[in-house]
Amino acid sequence: MKIKFCYIGIGFSVAVVLSLFSCVGGEKTTEQQLLSDKHPSLVLTPSGVSEIKANLGKAPLFDQTFAAVVNEVDAALANGIKVPIPKDLAGGYTHERHKTNFFTIQKAGALFQITGDEKYAIYIRDMLLAYAEIWPTLGKHPAERSYARGKIFWQCLNDANWLVYTSQGYDCIYEWLDESTREKLNKELFRPYAEYVSIENPQFFNRIHNHSTWGNAAVGMIGLVMGDEELINWALNGLDIKVPGDIVKDNDGGDIRLDGQKEAGFLAQIDHSFSPDGYYTEGPYYQRYAMYPFLIFAQALANKKPELGILDYRNGLLIKAIYALINQTNSAGEFFPINDSQKGMSLASRELVHAVSMAYYFGGMDPELLSIVEEQGRVPLNNTGMAAAKGVAEGKAKKFQYKSLELSDGAAGDEGAIGIIRAEDLTLVMKYAKHGMGHGHFDRLGFLLYDETGEVIQDYGAARWVNIDHKDGGGYLKENHSWAKETVAHNTLVVDKDSHFDGKVKPADKTAGTPYYFLGGDAVQIVSAKETNAYRDIEMQRTMAVAQVKELENPLVIDLFAVQAPEGTRYDLPLYYMGEYMSSNQKFQTNNNLSPMGQHDGYEHLWAEAQTKLESDIFSMTWFNKRKFYTVTSAVESGDEMIMTRIGANDPNFNLRRDPGLIHRRTGGHTVFASLYEMHGSYDYASERPINSFTSIENLKILHQSEAYVLVQFELKTGENYRFAFSLLDDNESSKHVVETPDGELQWKGIYDFNEYNK
Amino acid sequence: MKIKFCYIGIGFSVAVVLSLFSCVGGEKTTEQQLLSDKHPSLVLTPSGVSEIKANLGKAPLFDQTFAAVVNEVDAALANGIKVPIPKDLAGGYTHERHKTNFFTIQKAGALFQITGDEKYAIYIRDMLLAYAEIWPTLGKHPAERSYARGKIFWQCLNDANWLVYTSQGYDCIYEWLDESTREKLNKELFRPYAEYVSIENPQFFNRIHNHSTWGNAAVGMIGLVMGDEELINWALNGLDIKVPGDIVKDNDGGDIRLDGQKEAGFLAQIDHSFSPDGYYTEGPYYQRYAMYPFLIFAQALANKKPELGILDYRNGLLIKAIYALINQTNSAGEFFPINDSQKGMSLASRELVHAVSMAYYFGGMDPELLSIVEEQGRVPLNNTGMAAAKGVAEGKAKKFQYKSLELSDGAAGDEGAIGIIRAEDLTLVMKYAKHGMGHGHFDRLGFLLYDETGEVIQDYGAARWVNIDHKDGGGYLKENHSWAKETVAHNTLVVDKDSHFDGKVKPADKTAGTPYYFLGGDAVQIVSAKETNAYRDIEMQRTMAVAQVKELENPLVIDLFAVQAPEGTRYDLPLYYMGEYMSSNQKFQTNNNLSPMGQHDGYEHLWAEAQTKLESDIFSMTWFNKRKFYTVTSAVESGDEMIMTRIGANDPNFNLRRDPGLIHRRTGGHTVFASLYEMHGSYDYASERPINSFTSIENLKILHQSEAYVLVQFELKTGENYRFAFSLLDDNESSKHVVETPDGELQWKGIYDFNEYNK
Repeated sequence: MKIKFCYIGIGFSVAVVLSLFSCVGGEKTTEQQLLSDKHPSLVLTPSGVSEIKANLGKAPLFDQTFAAVVNEVDAALANGIKVPIPKDLAGGYTHERHKTNFFTIQKAGALFQITGDEKYAIYIRDMLLAYAEIWPTLGKHPAERSYARGKIFWQCLNDANWLVYTSQGYDCIYEWLDESTREKLNKELFRPYAEYVSIENPQFFNRIHNHSTWGNAAVGMIGLVMGDEELINWALNGLDIKVPGDIVKDNDGGDIRLDGQKEAGFLAQIDHSFSPDGYYTEGPYYQRYAMYPFLIFAQALANKKPELGILDYRNGLLIKAIYALINQTNSAGEFFPINDSQKGMSLASRELVHAVSMAYYFGGMDPELLSIVEEQGRVPLNNTGMAAAKGVAEGKAKKFQYKSLELSDGAAGDEGAIGIIRAEDLTLVMKYAKHGMGHGHFDRLGFLLYDETGEVIQDYGAARWVNIDHKDGGGYLKENHSWAKETVAHNTLVVDKDSHFDGKVKPADKTAGTPYYFLGGDAVQIVSAKETNAYRDIEMQRTMAVAQVKELENPLVIDLFAVQAPEGTRYDLPLYYMGEYMSSNQKFQTNNNLSPMGQHDGYEHLWAEAQTKLESDIFSMTWFNKRKFYTVTSAVESGDEMIMTRIGANDPNFNLRRDPGLIHRRTGGHTVFASLYEMHGSYDYASERPINSFTSIENLKILHQSEAYVLVQFELKTGENYRFAFSLLDDNESSKHVVETPDGELQWKGIYDFNEYNK
Repeated sequence: MKIKFCYIGIGFSVAVVLSLFSCVGGEKTTEQQLLSDKHPSLVLTPSGVSEIKANLGKAPLFDQTFAAVVNEVDAALANGIKVPIPKDLAGGYTHERHKTNFFTIQKAGALFQITGDEKYAIYIRDMLLAYAEIWPTLGKHPAERSYARGKIFWQCLNDANWLVYTSQGYDCIYEWLDESTREKLNKELFRPYAEYVSIENPQFFNRIHNHSTWGNAAVGMIGLVMGDEELINWALNGLDIKVPGDIVKDNDGGDIRLDGQKEAGFLAQIDHSFSPDGYYTEGPYYQRYAMYPFLIFAQALANKKPELGILDYRNGLLIKAIYALINQTNSAGEFFPINDSQKGMSLASRELVHAVSMAYYFGGMDPELLSIVEEQGRVPLNNTGMAAAKGVAEGKAKKFQYKSLELSDGAAGDEGAIGIIRAEDLTLVMKYAKHGMGHGHFDRLGFLLYDETGEVIQDYGAARWVNIDHKDGGGYLKENHSWAKETVAHNTLVVDKDSHFDGKVKPADKTAGTPYYFLGGDAVQIVSAKETNAYRDIEMQRTMAVAQVKELENPLVIDLFAVQAPEGTRYDLPLYYMGEYMSSNQKFQTNNNLSPMGQHDGYEHLWAEAQTKLESDIFSMTWFNKRKFYTVTSAVESGDEMIMTRIGANDPNFNLRRDPGLIHRRTGGHTVFASLYEMHGSYDYASERPINSFTSIENLKILHQSEAYVLVQFELKTGENYRFAFSLLDDNESSKHVVETPDGELQWKGIYDFNEYNK
């Protein structure tokens, strides 16, 4: 591919430039003219607008959103047009002003189309002219933090955000504008703007990365509005251009990695960013952010270039990705905070408001999506939003059925996965995916556990308050590296107090966990995976089962963490339970004088509040949170210790939450950590009545452990015994297995066995 | 008063006893016969039952409660009658079983009356016969913890609970029973039961204390059912009986205090337990618990002895007390956790469900109470409940208007008070009441602050998990004394690291804080009180104002803590803010190695996480909680320090929450601690957009401080200056005052002055 472009000479007066350049992006073809003939045609379409007008007043969710947007935009109009010279970082005035501007332009465009009220068109036009006025005067943004500095914002990423939203508003007034204004804006603002975020910043535009997705969508969308095939081509297929050799890392430390990269552009992003199951390797928090440009550009392409069949691309991958996102949420609709994620981001976000309605409209009108739309309580002001709102108004909504599923990672789906098990109110998540690049955490085989109250066993999430200026400008905090990413901050095994892959992204990115077995939907559900790369000479396999045990009020989680390692290896297995300690069968020695537990790998942020050398066969601890009780029961080996930890040491700016943890410490070689997690009982503050506040587990024993098998038996207080056996090497469903136990042989067929055992 | 009674011979066979005793409590009078003629007549009445029947199906709240109770009681019926020999403490099987029994008897009685279904009557009868069977065989409960051991439960208090509820069920089947069964129950179960909790345990029955209220109500109610005037007399007027000299303290360390006590019984409880405003000296948590026997017995007396005019007693005090309780709640309807209180106890409790409907019915059908009934979502199954449910069904409910008010303490209303200021979503509570006896905390002039999200500045509450067996049987924990009651655990001044009154209840109980000024409902609302007894030679006066400042989004709290003390006194002023530290204008030195801050008075439970010698004129710190920002701004004196604390040291059983605090430390003599508490802004996790996250306060200065006056001036970031002046000695509204300031004189009339100041 050969790129042709004409430069807009910065410094020329606007009027002169305007008359000098009649050609932008080379020759015009008939097709281009055709494309640019009809407007709006990007997200709204003429028939879509008619449909919306015809249904106003009939779909309350749409009407509510419409009324709210009218209020918001009218207030913005009253506030006047403010296009300050860029200066601030995120959170600062000029940043927030320009951000508000692009959201308002997009909304005002929709209102103009729906209401026909010219005040909205005038507002957009005048705003855009103000941008056209300052654009030629702007150099790079004065803040120098970014690997790709923007002009309006401190980074090209935000400039691309601006263009993605502004394109939509521009499309809505395109036909209303007189031709000279349109030409002026095309040539003096939008074409140079698009060039800035593409050919002038290929290190931003030409990656396989969420930043580039925004860049591609921005350039593609304005290309579609202006009928500029060259921009569309860049957007879809990337640039054939060299990136300056000195730019190798982005702001987050991610590699630019253009060496040997063969592909770029929007189609390549779809190819490489998602697994065939729609999982995005950075995790749901970033997937949510990245989805908007994927979907909005896809919607525009579906409207303007239906021949591309973009929504069918890779078996309808983009719609699948929306389902993947929905499936990565807890009972409050909040995304699992794996990798760098701020907790609380949820299906309520504007990106998902757009995505879910879009999945409904373009993905076969699935009534289960409507229950999510109902929860969201608003819809996008376009056809997909009207369709969803009508569906809700017509009572079509059905409860979304969250099912157990394994989401593969990697473009080909063969680089690890995350396993999600749902059972009644319980959600168990185990992560054995790829690292997740610059935003990944060193948490192979880590897990999270939820119930209807929220987090039971938490992932810390990122050490960051997004956009909150108090906290280092709202960006990632130092403690995100020193604590949140480290292995000891997660519910997975730490060997010799080192993080997985020595805490290095590069080797971590090269491999993924190995899915071993996943079984969803049965009375016993199982996720099992191996990890052999995180530590040299150490093989780890975690098997978690969620079992219906008829005597228990809730499903029981069985956790078997098997390790093959040299003798004398030191293991720490943390458990970040949420809530207040109630009691334990062990007597802890508490420390009145606290010191950090180590110097590096996250241990420098932990205080040991108490510890105990474990005695008796089991460790048992009950805690209380949000009116419920929880108990962990672990099998004890001679020499085991348990440490009660608290996060907070070496935290000079109070950036970390003072959350508790529990570390099971063991020195050994081949071993198995076996635990049960039980959710039980309740407590009501108004009646002050505890129900079932004690564990039902009397005992837990490992009856057999070897490289090939692990077999545990647990006993309930009511006397029943249950056994869970698992084949660690042979995943053939028809293989027969025999293991020796102190009480004789146990035989079974297949990968696992779970049964009541009567002596 | 002379007491007559006949003993039931324990060891006689039941049949023999039955035939031998025809007289219980001396001669029967005509009046007694009349009283016992009509049943139900205690809480339900024949006309009330007709009214309920006539309205079934018309008042959804009543119908819902009715259906829920039918479900619950039918399940209990299906479960059979279980009357185990008493053995366990609270939380244990026999305790919980007997507790469930009395609740079920009461409910089954109501159902029998409403439905006429004999299965409920049969269940109650058989249950009572089973109790009659075991009663003569029972000695004192085997647990020896209580100063007044029960028979069915470990303490008489719970035995009295049983009788209060069971009387109601018994009343409902009284006429249905054949005479011989009735006589048997009266003589073999109820009369001896009533004697046990009264004349056999006068140290329990004859106090002025919530325990005795239960005892009085229990004996009085069963007396009303049986028409036993002697019991009624004991209940109303107490016993003329000597208490064994060796019983001087109750389980909680409260004094039995019979020396010189002139009065006892229910009327004396009303006289002594409440202030004329309906405040109960132990605080709302215990008031809630104590209210039930007050109200249910009062309701019974109103039905059966209308000539007493019990509900008009002391100007309708019992109804006032219900309003006082409602006024002592936050936006979630939870009681202020002053003194020993478990947080979360609320208007949703069964006691308040009863109380609010009763206040509605007997207190003039106030429609504002109906909004609380709506929130409660259930009503008692009696006339008052039907009236409230009908009121709700008829759309009469109005929002309860929480107003600023001062609730006096002390039987005569002259022993301190608590001040409650409401302004928009803000609630400020300042405590300068009596100590609150055995359940009091050493927190004179302490305060609590709430907004619509809940706690902003918290009171720790009690160190206790009520009824949760894991935590020392659910009783008060050791840390309740060593931490929760101590002064440093509260938002008030600690002098020389000692608690008020040296942490001793006796001297604390002898005095109260002194209300100085209260002004509610204006644009500036003020509460000011003095405390001169807590520390020798030290006079403290705290003045808190809640001011509408037009530039600010929320009302601003101004806090002026003035002290007159010898030079060299060391002050610590804690502030228990809720949430995560965001930033400060001061640089804290954090400690990686933590040690307890002291050895006693609560300091042994605190770690200092960071500290700083304060520089510049003000200390400012912003924190974040539940999507909102908060800032404290304090005027700094030379030498001041600020310490960031964390609760948790010397806590071997993890009984304490790891909550943060901030201690303002100063050494000096006469001084004023001046602070502003500002609630501002918001943050939404779905949009990740912070709004107004920084304080609007630029500066705060003490312009004048003396024994007579304090004058502060604060400046907003937008440049406006405000001055608040307060007269500490002269509370005459018409006095004129002049103070010198660096900028000249300030003159005002009255107790305070608040105005914008233009230089």
